[in-house]
Amino acid sequence: MSRPLLQHPDRLLPAEPSVRAIARRLYQSVSALPILSPHGHTDPAWFATNANWSNPTELLLAPDHYLFRMLYSQGVPLEDLGVASRSGPGSVDPQTAWRTFAAHFHLFRGTPSAMWLNHTFATVFGLDVTLSSKTADYYYERISADLATAEFRPRALFERFGIELLATTEGPTDSLEHHEAIRDSGWKGRVVSAYRPDSVIDAEHECFAAALRRFGELTREDVYTWDGYLQAHAKRRQDFIAVGTTSSDHGHPTARTANLAHREAEALFMRIVSGDFTADQAELFRAQMLTEMARLSLDDGLVMQIHPGSFRNHNRELFDTHGRDKGADMPTRTEYVQALKPLLDAFGNNPRLSLIVFTLDESTYARELAPLAGHYPCLKLGPAWWFHDSPEGIRRFREQVTETAGFYNTVGFNDDTRAFLSIPARHDVARRVDCGFLARLVAEHRLDEEEAAEVAAELAYRLAKRAYRL
Amino acid sequence: MSRPLLQHPDRLLPAEPSVRAIARRLYQSVSALPILSPHGHTDPAWFATNANWSNPTELLLAPDHYLFRMLYSQGVPLEDLGVASRSGPGSVDPQTAWRTFAAHFHLFRGTPSAMWLNHTFATVFGLDVTLSSKTADYYYERISADLATAEFRPRALFERFGIELLATTEGPTDSLEHHEAIRDSGWKGRVVSAYRPDSVIDAEHECFAAALRRFGELTREDVYTWDGYLQAHAKRRQDFIAVGTTSSDHGHPTARTANLAHREAEALFMRIVSGDFTADQAELFRAQMLTEMARLSLDDGLVMQIHPGSFRNHNRELFDTHGRDKGADMPTRTEYVQALKPLLDAFGNNPRLSLIVFTLDESTYARELAPLAGHYPCLKLGPAWWFHDSPEGIRRFREQVTETAGFYNTVGFNDDTRAFLSIPARHDVARRVDCGFLARLVAEHRLDEEEAAEVAAELAYRLAKRAYRL
Amino acid sequence: MSRPLLQHPDRLLPAEPSVRAIARRLYQSVSALPILSPHGHTDPAWFATNANWSNPTELLLAPDHYLFRMLYSQGVPLEDLGVASRSGPGSVDPQTAWRTFAAHFHLFRGTPSAMWLNHTFATVFGLDVTLSSKTADYYYERISADLATAEFRPRALFERFGIELLATTEGPTDSLEHHEAIRDSGWKGRVVSAYRPDSVIDAEHECFAAALRRFGELTREDVYTWDGYLQAHAKRRQDFIAVGTTSSDHGHPTARTANLAHREAEALFMRIVSGDFTADQAELFRAQMLTEMARLSLDDGLVMQIHPGSFRNHNRELFDTHGRDKGADMPTRTEYVQALKPLLDAFGNNPRLSLIVFTLDESTYARELAPLAGHYPCLKLGPAWWFHDSPEGIRRFREQVTETAGFYNTVGFNDDTRAFLSIPARHDVARRVDCGFLARLVAEHRLDEEEAAEVAAELAYRLAKRAYRL
Repeated sequence: MSRPLLQHPDRLLPAEPSVRAIARRLYQSVSALPILSPHGHTDPAWFATNANWSNPTELLLAPDHYLFRMLYSQGVPLEDLGVASRSGPGSVDPQTAWRTFAAHFHLFRGTPSAMWLNHTFATVFGLDVTLSSKTADYYYERISADLATAEFRPRALFERFGIELLATTEGPTDSLEHHEAIRDSGWKGRVVSAYRPDSVIDAEHECFAAALRRFGELTREDVYTWDGYLQAHAKRRQDFIAVGTTSSDHGHPTARTANLAHREAEALFMRIVSGDFTADQAELFRAQMLTEMARLSLDDGLVMQIHPGSFRNHNRELFDTHGRDKGADMPTRTEYVQALKPLLDAFGNNPRLSLIVFTLDESTYARELAPLAGHYPCLKLGPAWWFHDSPEGIRRFREQVTETAGFYNTVGFNDDTRAFLSIPARHDVARRVDCGFLARLVAEHRLDEEEAAEVAAELAYRLAKRAYRL
Repeated sequence: MSRPLLQHPDRLLPAEPSVRAIARRLYQSVSALPILSPHGHTDPAWFATNANWSNPTELLLAPDHYLFRMLYSQGVPLEDLGVASRSGPGSVDPQTAWRTFAAHFHLFRGTPSAMWLNHTFATVFGLDVTLSSKTADYYYERISADLATAEFRPRALFERFGIELLATTEGPTDSLEHHEAIRDSGWKGRVVSAYRPDSVIDAEHECFAAALRRFGELTREDVYTWDGYLQAHAKRRQDFIAVGTTSSDHGHPTARTANLAHREAEALFMRIVSGDFTADQAELFRAQMLTEMARLSLDDGLVMQIHPGSFRNHNRELFDTHGRDKGADMPTRTEYVQALKPLLDAFGNNPRLSLIVFTLDESTYARELAPLAGHYPCLKLGPAWWFHDSPEGIRRFREQVTETAGFYNTVGFNDDTRAFLSIPARHDVARRVDCGFLARLVAEHRLDEEEAAEVAAELAYRLAKRAYRL
Repeated sequence: MSRPLLQHPDRLLPAEPSVRAIARRLYQSVSALPILSPHGHTDPAWFATNANWSNPTELLLAPDHYLFRMLYSQGVPLEDLGVASRSGPGSVDPQTAWRTFAAHFHLFRGTPSAMWLNHTFATVFGLDVTLSSKTADYYYERISADLATAEFRPRALFERFGIELLATTEGPTDSLEHHEAIRDSGWKGRVVSAYRPDSVIDAEHECFAAALRRFGELTREDVYTWDGYLQAHAKRRQDFIAVGTTSSDHGHPTARTANLAHREAEALFMRIVSGDFTADQAELFRAQMLTEMARLSLDDGLVMQIHPGSFRNHNRELFDTHGRDKGADMPTRTEYVQALKPLLDAFGNNPRLSLIVFTLDESTYARELAPLAGHYPCLKLGPAWWFHDSPEGIRRFREQVTETAGFYNTVGFNDDTRAFLSIPARHDVARRVDCGFLARLVAEHRLDEEEAAEVAAELAYRLAKRAYRL
């Protein structure tokens, strides 16, 4: 039960000794590089206020849908884990919730969550036994005690983690007050935002009407006219740029784009704001807006990200009782070759546009995304995403993408997390798996080790820096 | 030509010595566990009558579409292999058929069929040379002689194989006489059935009208009314439960489910029984019936299995001359996220429902099935199925499912076979491949060996026991 | 920068020493077998005229869309690489273009293009330093000097490469003059054609009307009647057979087939030649023509190949300025089980038909193609194609196809290239990767080494010879 918690120095490196030796050398050359986190969902208030976190349930468990969904799948009610519902924050005692979590920790065997957590437990909190029912209280008390100290406040950890830049994600109706506070605080940590306008683009979002109204108030534009609406986006993008933002991000159900004539786009927009539209029209409007965002990017230089293919809030009952982001988002089959064509027809050959595309549908890696990225000057591929941000997932990404797109049409690693403490663990996993992949190429004499070392540094640091214009 | 037939003790374990050593230890800890076969298609008459089989063609070749389809693909007529057609059983001399099979055995190189057969030849019949034209008669005579003995009668082999439970599959119009005979025989072997009502649910099945009539006779319900029809299912499920059944099984073209209001469902049913319906209506009725079956499961506790995505009887001419199950069923692209939503909206959060989903479309493992199973309390994933029940297929299943669903949302192994003698071989392959996968995780320091051993026993035995409520 | 250019004897073989030792033995047994290249796109004029090539840009870079697309994706204009546009051949100085290529050679790290080129540089030209900006001129001059000699003329290289047979691909409006010249030249090299009638079948092709007119002139048939049109195909196939052709090839957007009644087919054809047709009708006509071609194959014995699923000329602007084959063809999701059924219903059980199917959608390997090929007597699977003709791609093909289709329903390797000098490199990669796959099966005791050696020779040589009736 109380097995020692070990972080083996060779973890995740291929087992074959000659390949492992190469992988170890490659990994050692990149393991200490600074962390660039150009896309994620941490809370900027942490870095603005720099307040202490209170306990491991609040910090590690309750906000992390990667974790509580697994216990939920085995019949544990979310209420028992301290997860907030629409009626308010979880009422369970946080230490009780932590014990429930600990008692089910075996469910994570073989998952990246187990690796990230163990890395966090061992390297951030110095814990040396594994988490289990028996050690649950020990963990809870040790972590809570640490969190009460100055060394474990958000900014201190940011620095200790070697983060060079961290991007959060905010919507166009966000005040950006935390980012302004960070910027004006004198703290030298770089925490920037990304412009994610889904709430004012997705007319099927439950808050669309309210978000649009707020969008108009913040920008003082008439967002109920097509030109005013576009102008409002241009203005808000400038606000984001003023707090260091270098990218926009778009989380749509599909990758569909459209490039309507101005008059048609305007007519569609009027339909959308009227509230009287079909599902097809809502989809077409989202498609049109991707092309509009690309157009704005050519003006203001924001790098554009598309994260398509998630069926959000699949569990109707859970959505009704608990709201969004409760581990019930499901990947769907996603098409890119037809979907991106209108946008690519408009701007695909312009190397000044930087469009980073992600997928939850791995069958598109070799079939659609690598061929597209291996041709279009504007296009790059984001790393293995969400369910696929895992040792096997990252390996499949490299195996299926590299031969057609090469390494240089990819953009390094994104942690894409709301779990701040997992950031070093996630980057470490990616660096190890990438180095393992490179080591195999070297061992099979497909790449010189010298070249592999150069590529390893690109994947760990330099590609992200260039692709996100950091 | 007469190469020795060897069953290497390390077969299927990874080649790298340190990984193999771990895999060997894990495998040794589970290799002797009893066999649970909770889903398959063996003939219960074998165990009811316990009659001797007569020769290898009748036992091993003629009923096994995995085998004769491969020879057929290379131009060998089914008639030459003793396969029955609509005009009756094959008329070829069984020994001649066996020689034809032996002369083509090289076609199976690299396939699981070769591994299963060689395992059977070596461990069941003690043969020590490989099958070829030169040894065909030797094989035929040795196997025929063995089959004539008491030690090779069905119940004796069942016991020798260490089978703790074997489920066959019967339809709602089956008399269950063999299962009743087994139950009442005093033999301690557990052979149970599974309730597979496709013939009275799939209105496009060529025997639907006849099956429905027989369904009414057996249950004494008016199966031409919606409520009577549902009541007939409830009754027959009780009949199956009385012979030890713990699961139902549903082999539909797609995974589509529906949850119509009672009035709508009733109107649809009346259309179906009228015989005047469209393909869409037949599909909608199958979809509705999956939800009805889930509802019944919540009453009577049967575990529910869905096996979707096979295009049955693809070869029209062969179907006309030879009928069903002649190696001409083809997998199709299968969608789950949209398809299962109506059923999941109704019962997805109920942990009392146990719904085991299978696929022939491996692209859904990481994209749809693992995320669904890693969230919904009612949902578990069946093992790699049919064409994918193979060393590479099982490995891909674990590599693509584990990181999101974990091990505990899977249900261990199903052999799903009509080839009784292959059952130990199939379970052995699965145990070896699973232990090889676990050994890699251990060698890459992603799992302790102690944990891996615990998981190995879950995969080999305990998960099936729990998931199928055995 | 000037790293030595090494071709390690064990390149591409698995790293684990015991597996590598097996792979090395298998590879040595097949490495010197003659090359059969039954499908490709080299220029027959090279072998008819046997004229010297002039420089590496003209020979290696400008015609090879695998290469220039990668530089284009990173913002290098095609003009800088000597690629022809619609306004004529590239005007850049070829040595300058070569320097640009050399300066970007790192983009190919981890790609098969890098392996093929390095193999060509080392084994054809004896170069011993890697290509880079620093060595660009050295390369250019060394290669140009070699190309000016008799030993580097097309026929000399053909013989040096050990090519037993090379098939090019021509359309029905081709004069076949180069093939006739080769046949009548007394040279013993076998260079044959393949009949690719897309230009007179795809009514959406920009040259359809002109091609159809020329088709009528060449065949002296009334190609504006259905029967005359079919007769014209039959005649031209005979012309191709007269220059050694053994196969036809069909590059359609999808794998769809149809088998209309004669009257319906005729009506559809009249619609097509009228020029007044819908996209659906054009697709249906292509579908119908696949079945017609199968019918003709049963008469004249040509092996039939289908290469479906490429979205041609995806980049509209580039197509307008530079025309076809500029690296902008994109794979699409492709369906086979429904699509091939009409053709298979007509001829699927006839072992005299040899139908070789390819895919750009790897998700169909295990799901659709292996089950189809493992059943239908007429069907075989072409090797990993285009974007998937790579070490990882070939490995995935074997891993996903073999267990259901076996080795004997595949057809060996196709290089499918317009890059003549890459042919030995491509076959060498395929032989190495196939031997690596076989070695793993041997090391895991799934195949005897003796059997593996037999299979290796089938994959490298004999399967192609039989499948293409060479």
